[in-house]
Amino acid sequence: MAKATAPKTRRGIERRAKILAAAETVMGEQGFPAASIADITREAGTALGTFYIYFSNKEEIFRELVLEMGKVTRKMVAEAIADAPDRLAAERAGLAAFLNFVAKRPALYRIVEEARFVDPEAYQRYFTSFGDAYAAQLRAAEAKGEISPGDADIRAWALMGMAKALGDRYVIWDDVPDIDRVVNEAHRLICRGLVPDAAG
Amino acid sequence: MAKATAPKTRRGIERRAKILAAAETVMGEQGFPAASIADITREAGTALGTFYIYFSNKEEIFRELVLEMGKVTRKMVAEAIADAPDRLAAERAGLAAFLNFVAKRPALYRIVEEARFVDPEAYQRYFTSFGDAYAAQLRAAEAKGEISPGDADIRAWALMGMAKALGDRYVIWDDVPDIDRVVNEAHRLICRGLVPDAAG
Repeated sequence: MAKATAPKTRRGIERRAKILAAAETVMGEQGFPAASIADITREAGTALGTFYIYFSNKEEIFRELVLEMGKVTRKMVAEAIADAPDRLAAERAGLAAFLNFVAKRPALYRIVEEARFVDPEAYQRYFTSFGDAYAAQLRAAEAKGEISPGDADIRAWALMGMAKALGDRYVIWDDVPDIDRVVNEAHRLICRGLVPDAAG
Repeated sequence: MAKATAPKTRRGIERRAKILAAAETVMGEQGFPAASIADITREAGTALGTFYIYFSNKEEIFRELVLEMGKVTRKMVAEAIADAPDRLAAERAGLAAFLNFVAKRPALYRIVEEARFVDPEAYQRYFTSFGDAYAAQLRAAEAKGEISPGDADIRAWALMGMAKALGDRYVIWDDVPDIDRVVNEAHRLICRGLVPDAAG
């Protein structure tokens, strides 16, 4: 099947973005299997046929949302850690940025998790790409002596998992998330682990 | 709708267990939406009608599998950490037991993750119950001075998330998982965090 064309006019770009935002809302609320293209265009306030100008099917717009989550989270974390003086400070800033993102776009977060079942390849690509970039940063920090030596890939995955679980429990499930508290506590664990203080 | 009855005879118990094991295989492979009751009874080698002696519908057997994962993982982790001399040793043994469980029952692991979408209440109950038990153990360890002081709930969720992400990446995705290596590296992070050694 021919891939739907990318819009060239400003009106087209806006209309595509509107449909994408509507898909985020509808799929985030209903989940992929229940969400219909009619629900999406209704939410977007466009005609059903307009969907097919920009997307071939439901699977394609879903994958597009997973890609968007990748772009947005990576940009947001990069901005958040740009001014961090060292890697430990960057860990704190990155975790805070991620949890704030989950609070702001819970539907997009849910869609990426649903990709594990709906589009396993996109799911794996998403986390592999994020994990590779994370590990590269840890390697650079180790070379500068900012963190202790260790396997950067395993650490990157452990830290991503930590952030995801905290996002589930303290952002998605809590009515009033206290992100600062979670970040402070998790950051202490990330920096110093569980061993009692030498002085203790 | 009346709940299907629990079996009383040995034959009934075995037949129910067979259907449950078949559901684990079929739902683990196909996912909940695609898996049919006919697929499950075919896999179990029983008549379609036999399913309804023990379960009312697909949703009920799915929930039963989530409950089973809860029972099995908890028992397995409890056994694994029973002989650990302190909490840090227990963290290592518990993580190793969890990752080995994921390697052994990948379908059950996948089913619990799918519960996030198929049966959010069961999903939340599963992780809340596991997290509460985990936090209680961390609190007891802190009281004994085995670990540094800190918020036990946030730490429990962070550590569960770590284990899940490592299970995804290094057990589910890898053809030949090297669980020892992952456990060693993650355990160092759990104990000492990322800060460079004082001597470094």
